[in-house]
Amino acid sequence: MTVRVAVDALGGDRAPEEIVAGAALAAAPAVQPILFGPAGLDTLGLPLVRTTEVVGMDEHAAEAVRAKPDSSLVRAVRAVADGEADAVVSAGSTGAMLAASLFHVRRLEGVHRPGIAVVLPARRGPSVLIDSGANADARPEHLLQFAHMGSVFAHEILGVVDPEVRLLSIGEEDEKGDALTLEANELLRASGLRFAGNTEARTLLEGEADVVVCDGVTGNAALKALEGTIRTILESLRAELGSSARGRLGGLLIRPAAKRVRERLDPETYGGAYLLGLRGLVVIAHGSSTRVAIANAIRLAARGVEHDVVARVGERLQAGVLASARSTTPTAQK
Amino acid sequence: MTVRVAVDALGGDRAPEEIVAGAALAAAPAVQPILFGPAGLDTLGLPLVRTTEVVGMDEHAAEAVRAKPDSSLVRAVRAVADGEADAVVSAGSTGAMLAASLFHVRRLEGVHRPGIAVVLPARRGPSVLIDSGANADARPEHLLQFAHMGSVFAHEILGVVDPEVRLLSIGEEDEKGDALTLEANELLRASGLRFAGNTEARTLLEGEADVVVCDGVTGNAALKALEGTIRTILESLRAELGSSARGRLGGLLIRPAAKRVRERLDPETYGGAYLLGLRGLVVIAHGSSTRVAIANAIRLAARGVEHDVVARVGERLQAGVLASARSTTPTAQK
Repeated sequence: MTVRVAVDALGGDRAPEEIVAGAALAAAPAVQPILFGPAGLDTLGLPLVRTTEVVGMDEHAAEAVRAKPDSSLVRAVRAVADGEADAVVSAGSTGAMLAASLFHVRRLEGVHRPGIAVVLPARRGPSVLIDSGANADARPEHLLQFAHMGSVFAHEILGVVDPEVRLLSIGEEDEKGDALTLEANELLRASGLRFAGNTEARTLLEGEADVVVCDGVTGNAALKALEGTIRTILESLRAELGSSARGRLGGLLIRPAAKRVRERLDPETYGGAYLLGLRGLVVIAHGSSTRVAIANAIRLAARGVEHDVVARVGERLQAGVLASARSTTPTAQK
Repeated sequence: MTVRVAVDALGGDRAPEEIVAGAALAAAPAVQPILFGPAGLDTLGLPLVRTTEVVGMDEHAAEAVRAKPDSSLVRAVRAVADGEADAVVSAGSTGAMLAASLFHVRRLEGVHRPGIAVVLPARRGPSVLIDSGANADARPEHLLQFAHMGSVFAHEILGVVDPEVRLLSIGEEDEKGDALTLEANELLRASGLRFAGNTEARTLLEGEADVVVCDGVTGNAALKALEGTIRTILESLRAELGSSARGRLGGLLIRPAAKRVRERLDPETYGGAYLLGLRGLVVIAHGSSTRVAIANAIRLAARGVEHDVVARVGERLQAGVLASARSTTPTAQK
């Protein structure tokens, strides 16, 4: 089977060159990238679906999606909804991808809100952070669904048999956090998931749990603090080393090791994040994605199709909803 | 004038040895640390106020403060309330410090909630993150007060003449964020503060603004992600370098530079965070504080007393409340 991945050639800071190059890198017998972009684009031999509009990074997401039905972003998303592609990848505006996906691909039955699941390449092995920024103003039941979605992702994509789930909060004790996390903690305790309690953001890159659940605002703050810190600390180290002969020699010697650390720990280098809870597979790549990141995002999308993550999430949420309904129905309790 | 700083000798992971050593380091003609701890403690010549109880890091904060009035933490805080010290420093439980401060030192008139102001040693110069974890479930008017408190801090302690304020959110545009940040954005626009809009957590260590305002849960997630990332990346680099002869030599050569980067960028090395909005000066040091961090926290406390930060915050909030009242009274508008 060949997985067809619709790729928005005009999304991201380095579009279209790096996007097309990344798609070409990812092309393989089992993976067929299909580019969506303007006529005349050099596609390096890949198939092109011609589009006439482009959604900018700074446009109002919902308005842009409505106003530009023939944009590369909207058409690539629609290809999944229409069955012309098995998955879509874009490094364009996250908000526009969310809006286009909600409108065209639509939510799975029973899903309150889709969530962005990003892989954190933690030291003890990869883990999933969900929601890393799709939603503001989450409710406790949203967080419960994110936990289920994240568990399916960890199982299917990361190969974790019985994923451990933790809730991101202000302290490790159950009673620490805001009203949202306190209620979500209770729901998770009763969920049947392997819930190990709260965790703090300081453990994210160490990897205390397989799935870390939070609302989109907190997840976004933690993820971006993490990305920004990696960049700043490595740049500061480079500047500091450049200021002395000893440092310059040391810098030369450590370069391969520093590159490996950065590549292994920076979430950006994982390529993309899944937008879970939809009726089709949507992968959002980082805006600054290079060809390597785009190729990884396309491969990540293909893996999700092969493992039928969309169907698995749908089944799990049906089961999860039933389990929660049971656990909160007094007559069904002992 | 000599500033008297009450120091909780039993707070923190390395108490009492590192706390006492840090207090001894900070002692100077203008700074008099007063230790609070058990009889028989080796105080290195510093004065000791004898206490008989200790608040553990994992105790329920409010209950521990009520149940242990003769603990080193509560007595040190009370010394400020009673005028026996000008400021207090503890590396003990943040929750217990908050509870003891609210109960004994009490809030300034008109303050909704005290906020934790931590100095981020950003590349472009230090900035203030407030609230970095005192409060869950903040309201927009709390964030407005945090902005005023943070501005006073940036002015008095960091020497910034007219501090620029930004609001931590999920995107830079005014319309991005949850209900809390959207409302806070409007309040800040009308506040008279030099408000430059929203910022994302990725800029925290770069230093886009002098004051970054957020609710305690988001601030805590961002701060801890930042601290954890610094630790993980430097440890990973060390491990990676240890795996080859080339790496080991490079590691030896870069050691001084790496140490400088860590010391400059890690918020922990700043020593302590102010709990602002109270009738006395309260500094909370990191639980893992070494003697150097404790000495810095004590000096930070002394600087706050010299600049009369408590009175300045009180004046500002009075003025800020009046300004807000004006800007939201239709008859006073053009």
